[in-house]
Amino acid sequence: ECNFKPMRQREVKFVRSVMTPAITIEPETSVDEASRIMIQKGVNHLPVVKDGRLVGIVTSWDIAKAVATKKTGNVAEIMTRKVITALPDEPVEIAARKMEKHNISALPVVDAKQRVIGMVTSEDLSKLLVR
Amino acid sequence: ECNFKPMRQREVKFVRSVMTPAITIEPETSVDEASRIMIQKGVNHLPVVKDGRLVGIVTSWDIAKAVATKKTGNVAEIMTRKVITALPDEPVEIAARKMEKHNISALPVVDAKQRVIGMVTSEDLSKLLVR
Ligand SMILES: C[S@@+](CC[C@H](N)C(=O)[O-])C[C@H]1O[C@@H](n2cnc3c(N)ncnc32)[C@H](O)[C@@H]1O
Repeated sequence: ECNFKPMRQREVKFVRSVMTPAITIEPETSVDEASRIMIQKGVNHLPVVKDGRLVGIVTSWDIAKAVATKKTGNVAEIMTRKVITALPDEPVEIAARKMEKHNISALPVVDAKQRVIGMVTSEDLSKLLVR
Repeated sequence: ECNFKPMRQREVKFVRSVMTPAITIEPETSVDEASRIMIQKGVNHLPVVKDGRLVGIVTSWDIAKAVATKKTGNVAEIMTRKVITALPDEPVEIAARKMEKHNISALPVVDAKQRVIGMVTSEDLSKLLVR
């Protein structure tokens, strides 16, 4: 006799289905301009791109750091250069694990040529809890 | 005959079990000092408390906004005053829904007397995807 009610198999979700468009800037963008872009676009994370290739990331936390340390030149001075990224065909659990491991809240999504094709944030992932 | 493999019933998780300690500031705290506290403590969100009561919230996004608009006085000038909160005994799904609805990434957790007892962020929630 069957004692178990059928439960819908939890589907595997991929980064591609939850990612959002990335707003990118360049290393020469000023800290002031980067701040304006974050506010205008309502985002916390700006991947930094040079010649189409991902070279860094600037977040609103980095802006707060720039304020705290009175650095206000170009984003090249304040960006994080070793960027943790996600692939579009990666399960969301893997992206969540990377964020947890590195204590970060967003990953640029890149293609095989390291071009930025989107952004996945902890906000995007936490929406998956909402049915 | 039983065709279904038993699956562990998905437990209801409550905000209490995922919240982290809140770092609070006061309305008179300067924007510079708030930035320093964010960097020192590695957080993006600072609930603003006056006489033990929650009166606002300042995030690194607000700091970026302060840079963009060249406001650099006290946090009272830049904080959001209508704060969306969570209760410790609320299911995490409800907290996630509030974040989605208001496009925010953190909720101060308050007790019945509106005292801040913790913080729940989209980072905390996305960790629930990691098994
Ligand atoms: C609307 S969000 C947009 C950027 C991004 N979604 C985020 O959450 O950082 C930024 C604004 O939300 C405000 N905010 C953050 N958490 C809040 C909360 N729990 N209640 C009310 N406002 C909040 C911040 O003060 C900031 O001005």
